[in-house]
Amino acid sequence: MDARTDVQARIYRLSMMHPGDLSELSSLLEGGTLTAHEIVAVIGKTEGNGGINDFTRGYFTDRLMNLLARYLNKTPEEIARDVPCIMSGGTEGVLSPHYSVLCRVAEKSALSQSDSALAIGAKCSADMPFEHVGTVTHAMMVAQTVRDAMKDAGITDPADLHLVQVKAPCLTSDRIEVLRAAGKPVLAPNASASMARARAAGALGVAIATGEIDAADLSDDVFLRNFDLFSGCASISSGVEVLCNEVIVMGVSNAWSGPLRIAHRAMADAIDISSVHGVFSDLGFSPDLQVGPGERARLKAIFVKCEPDQSGHIHGARHTMLNDTDIDPQRHIRGAVGGLVAGVSGDTRIFVSGGAEHQGPFGGGLIAVIAEAAANQRQEGID
Amino acid sequence: MDARTDVQARIYRLSMMHPGDLSELSSLLEGGTLTAHEIVAVIGKTEGNGGINDFTRGYFTDRLMNLLARYLNKTPEEIARDVPCIMSGGTEGVLSPHYSVLCRVAEKSALSQSDSALAIGAKCSADMPFEHVGTVTHAMMVAQTVRDAMKDAGITDPADLHLVQVKAPCLTSDRIEVLRAAGKPVLAPNASASMARARAAGALGVAIATGEIDAADLSDDVFLRNFDLFSGCASISSGVEVLCNEVIVMGVSNAWSGPLRIAHRAMADAIDISSVHGVFSDLGFSPDLQVGPGERARLKAIFVKCEPDQSGHIHGARHTMLNDTDIDPQRHIRGAVGGLVAGVSGDTRIFVSGGAEHQGPFGGGLIAVIAEAAANQRQEGID
Amino acid sequence: MDARTDVQARIYRLSMMHPGDLSELSSLLEGGTLTAHEIVAVIGKTEGNGGINDFTRGYFTDRLMNLLARYLNKTPEEIARDVPCIMSGGTEGVLSPHYSVLCRVAEKSALSQSDSALAIGAKCSADMPFEHVGTVTHAMMVAQTVRDAMKDAGITDPADLHLVQVKAPCLTSDRIEVLRAAGKPVLAPNASASMARARAAGALGVAIATGEIDAADLSDDVFLRNFDLFSGCASISSGVEVLCNEVIVMGVSNAWSGPLRIAHRAMADAIDISSVHGVFSDLGFSPDLQVGPGERARLKAIFVKCEPDQSGHIHGARHTMLNDTDIDPQRHIRGAVGGLVAGVSGDTRIFVSGGAEHQGPFGGGLIAVIAEAAANQRQEGID
Amino acid sequence: MDARTDVQARIYRLSMMHPGDLSELSSLLEGGTLTAHEIVAVIGKTEGNGGINDFTRGYFTDRLMNLLARYLNKTPEEIARDVPCIMSGGTEGVLSPHYSVLCRVAEKSALSQSDSALAIGAKCSADMPFEHVGTVTHAMMVAQTVRDAMKDAGITDPADLHLVQVKAPCLTSDRIEVLRAAGKPVLAPNASASMARARAAGALGVAIATGEIDAADLSDDVFLRNFDLFSGCASISSGVEVLCNEVIVMGVSNAWSGPLRIAHRAMADAIDISSVHGVFSDLGFSPDLQVGPGERARLKAIFVKCEPDQSGHIHGARHTMLNDTDIDPQRHIRGAVGGLVAGVSGDTRIFVSGGAEHQGPFGGGLIAVIAEAAANQRQEGID
Repeated sequence: MDARTDVQARIYRLSMMHPGDLSELSSLLEGGTLTAHEIVAVIGKTEGNGGINDFTRGYFTDRLMNLLARYLNKTPEEIARDVPCIMSGGTEGVLSPHYSVLCRVAEKSALSQSDSALAIGAKCSADMPFEHVGTVTHAMMVAQTVRDAMKDAGITDPADLHLVQVKAPCLTSDRIEVLRAAGKPVLAPNASASMARARAAGALGVAIATGEIDAADLSDDVFLRNFDLFSGCASISSGVEVLCNEVIVMGVSNAWSGPLRIAHRAMADAIDISSVHGVFSDLGFSPDLQVGPGERARLKAIFVKCEPDQSGHIHGARHTMLNDTDIDPQRHIRGAVGGLVAGVSGDTRIFVSGGAEHQGPFGGGLIAVIAEAAANQRQEGID
Repeated sequence: MDARTDVQARIYRLSMMHPGDLSELSSLLEGGTLTAHEIVAVIGKTEGNGGINDFTRGYFTDRLMNLLARYLNKTPEEIARDVPCIMSGGTEGVLSPHYSVLCRVAEKSALSQSDSALAIGAKCSADMPFEHVGTVTHAMMVAQTVRDAMKDAGITDPADLHLVQVKAPCLTSDRIEVLRAAGKPVLAPNASASMARARAAGALGVAIATGEIDAADLSDDVFLRNFDLFSGCASISSGVEVLCNEVIVMGVSNAWSGPLRIAHRAMADAIDISSVHGVFSDLGFSPDLQVGPGERARLKAIFVKCEPDQSGHIHGARHTMLNDTDIDPQRHIRGAVGGLVAGVSGDTRIFVSGGAEHQGPFGGGLIAVIAEAAANQRQEGID
Repeated sequence: MDARTDVQARIYRLSMMHPGDLSELSSLLEGGTLTAHEIVAVIGKTEGNGGINDFTRGYFTDRLMNLLARYLNKTPEEIARDVPCIMSGGTEGVLSPHYSVLCRVAEKSALSQSDSALAIGAKCSADMPFEHVGTVTHAMMVAQTVRDAMKDAGITDPADLHLVQVKAPCLTSDRIEVLRAAGKPVLAPNASASMARARAAGALGVAIATGEIDAADLSDDVFLRNFDLFSGCASISSGVEVLCNEVIVMGVSNAWSGPLRIAHRAMADAIDISSVHGVFSDLGFSPDLQVGPGERARLKAIFVKCEPDQSGHIHGARHTMLNDTDIDPQRHIRGAVGGLVAGVSGDTRIFVSGGAEHQGPFGGGLIAVIAEAAANQRQEGID
Repeated sequence: MDARTDVQARIYRLSMMHPGDLSELSSLLEGGTLTAHEIVAVIGKTEGNGGINDFTRGYFTDRLMNLLARYLNKTPEEIARDVPCIMSGGTEGVLSPHYSVLCRVAEKSALSQSDSALAIGAKCSADMPFEHVGTVTHAMMVAQTVRDAMKDAGITDPADLHLVQVKAPCLTSDRIEVLRAAGKPVLAPNASASMARARAAGALGVAIATGEIDAADLSDDVFLRNFDLFSGCASISSGVEVLCNEVIVMGVSNAWSGPLRIAHRAMADAIDISSVHGVFSDLGFSPDLQVGPGERARLKAIFVKCEPDQSGHIHGARHTMLNDTDIDPQRHIRGAVGGLVAGVSGDTRIFVSGGAEHQGPFGGGLIAVIAEAAANQRQEGID
């Protein structure tokens, strides 16, 4: 992106009645509220199980690309290369299916350029051979795509990054068969394990791009083992529906203007309410326990990454998430952390994604929130 | 219970490694910390699914009664009549399997009699014919057992009640077959529906005993329909493992002394963090977002009742709990509310029970907490 | 359909790698093996949970209609009105995701007209107001649509019907809210219950069209109660993804020619292997326990409808399908009956659908198989 | 066991209403039909999920040992060392919860000694350190216990074995933590994976004892990799509720007499109906598709071991068991194979256990049936 003084980020957080329901976005496009070429990326939650056999993500993406194809002079497949669509399955508990449409608009604004305005960028890597899923090669590929997306966002200093959202491919039993038949190595014994390794690769890749870890420290052995290596701003999903690594970066840049602000915090553990509440304070929300109806209109997106503590304990008491044959551990943790964050935000349209391996502190995770600056903050922005 | 100036409530909140693990209680009994005849009731959470085919509750209860039989001159079956054991299945998300042993001890105390000390009482009704499950007859039977338990606790004014915990029998497909074969009415088409009706009967029964509703307003038609009729202090479970209605009342009485205090609040909805935080304030905890490690030692028990909002929405956004074929709605809501309450309490050993029909406001529920009085409060108690 | 001497049914049974995978059909269309206007209906199994929140059915249907729209001069929405697509979710156990494309082709054939050739027809009703779901009105609407589809198939005598496949709309928690808000009656307390009532309405509607039961015997009270009322050739699914009743009839007609034959049998219970084996005998397969690799090529489609016995027992022994909070009863029964039928057919691409209320005998169900006539039978057809 | 001419095996196959229900065995013991010291082992199916957090197995075992303690002059813990109780969780689909009580009785019999009479033996190994779970050490330990159990059964030639049932300990997240803290190796990343490795160790141990494989060919690398190494008569379960390896051998021996016979066959795949039907033929049942009500009384026990084909395909068609986040693969396969076997046997009280790694051919499994000899066969026994 060339430096421009009048570029602004806009976010439309929209609800869906089912994973194929794009009617709200369709209305906005039809009404001219936004134009399709302004869309940089889409991030959301669908009501699937969030696992290998969750096809709600693919369903939504398919419908989205077909919708955009009506407005852009490209095929759905071409658009999918340009506009990352990162859906996470699983709206356990109070969570509400929704999607956030991230836009970049060029317009005259009363607000002057600011070093605190939200900047966004997005890139897809080339398709990745399946034998690289969850390897150092995978991590390095993600690192390069993050650098490309930062350039797209006009963010030069990694310290200005607040959230790097990645969707990485995984293996399936079919793909594993193919690899084995070809005599290629398979690092993960099954599809679910490959999703964990792919998330690890994504997170370590982000950490390399941000400088949080050194590429020299990386080897296949540290994956899912050395959790001291992590990124404080990575949020990684993995799914059968992508063949490349999709990367969306969100941060701040003085090349951008407008009212949107972003903040993020690490969560020390799954019940770290202080960090959740703190990120709203960072954005200038009142210190009430819950964001009230009035301030809630400022909320534009909430992103959370979390993890069932691998030690099997939280604050010293045993939890049962890791030994459950009926409910997947990631479904458990999404529901619990979703309940906590909704209590603080007063809003259930939260992107909560499980599987926080190497993303934030071990057993914890991270939260990032995008909101309009408070009236007084915006005033400051003008002066 | 006769009025005695030196009776005190004590609560031991104990962990279990699996639903048959009573080792912590066994150690306490063996070491003489408590004696078996002091035990009034046991309430806890096991790591089952919380549904009809959750046998972890029965497993724990069986082991408990066998353990107590070694110390009391009674059979396990006789003890089960005297000592209600109300286990709720389901430790979704961050929740930790545990049980609270409620005791009544007679001892000399520096603390004088107080109208704020925790008082507890318990009673089991007679076995209930299955055709009455979820009917007005069921509710009236519970109402009488609540009155009996209040007498046992020395509580005369319903306003002094803070929590009435009930476990009520339900139907199974076998029992439904037997009823149908006998030409008897079956109000619930299946086992799961009968659990809901049984919970409704329990709640409405409590409300009659407390005077919150008038027996004349009760008919089978209001069950699960008219949610304006509810009790603000009822917490009802239903399960295949009980044949009678087990009732435990917790409140305050000037017939009791000691450091334990109880408070409760209604929850307006599943993300009502203010009520959760408020109940800790009521008990004199500091206003921090989360109860800190220091104060946490005062916590003796946390009871929560909650419900997936039947409107399908929370704060205006759609939730997906009611339409999920994979995860039971009650499992969803327990996990979410458990995450929220654990965030505030800093403690995951929470009794969170789903199915709050007629228990607290529609779509919400209630929270009750038992804690030792703060040092300054205890001082006040002495003066 | 006008009587024509050269109309033939053809069936392409195709596999899918995921619910959005139409590549096999796409290849056939592209290669000219079949043309889009020959397609009468599509029936298949997707790998969802088969419940309310199974969106794999909608995903597949959406992709199918978009694919056909490329070949037909209509919108996807218009095609959906003309070409019923009845997908059933749930490929438990050994079952394989697949879809059968039912075609009607006009061509010169060496085979003369035969009264044993497969005839197919399909119709969609008008959209049905949600308050009618699972009522007598619903049943009567289905009955009329069955009659229309019979006409489409050129079948005049109900005795010539072998399978009537129906997909009927159901309620969701949202739709129930809307109905209640409008003061309209809601016969089913929740979405899952409404699916059962909708299946009952569909089955009773078929039975009226076939004359198996008399419209005068129908009242809302018999639904899911009087299982003596049933159709021996009805197979009903219900799902959130349809707004009208989709009906496909399969039978025999002397207006059709070609090698395809159909047979069906009632299943007395879920382990009725004799009926399963018998239907293959009816079609001239060898008496081996399992259809061997050679004969397997003749198999064109297998349809099974089954039900977890509501008595809770099979051959006198208790089953646990009805009391399971973790796995839906319909998922249980599909997996079990699928295993049995696959053992006999040697083929796992079976349409097995649960929820056989009023479809075949109580506790049982039905099986229908379409296969090419054996060589000797085809010869007979010519003479 | 000393060679005795009058020792006979007896099997009581009993039903349970829930996992804690031993009432049928209690009645038999009370009525004197069998005496507690005749019980060699108990094998059964409980209605849990069959995974790590299936506590129905422990519940049943606890109740059984307490029941037997009333009749034997030993503690429950001592009896558990002498009488293996191998419960497998999961009665998916049509399967019925039940348990088979295997007895050894000494009595005068009209039947002379026969080399075809059922012989049974049982042994428990010493408790196994958790670091050995799923290793060569584990396998060698099982091999020795099998040899001990063969001696107990009076079986000297491995060719006379028909079924070796083993229950082996597994890891849990807690146990993994302990091992890691102690710096010990952990071969399985989680509890579920450790169950698979434990089953592999058990199967390979049996194969060494029977001579099917050579101990020299064993290394940790072949576990779950080289499936050419397998035992044709091993059936292994793994569970959190055992600390030692429990082994029950069933075969034939001329040291035993009586009417019971045993046969077993390998199953080539999950739909291998020919092997299922064949094992009944081996036992002299009529060639009907399903064992009829008359002959069914001869059935004493049915044991099946099966596996979701790791290639992801059955007879060339894709199955979805390996990629399902909602239902465990072992639950899928038990339900499907249970349906098939019940169709042939006409009886749903089948011990079907998933996880057949190294037990029977890859992707298949085995079936063993115990039945009374047919009248004509018993006559032959006398001559």
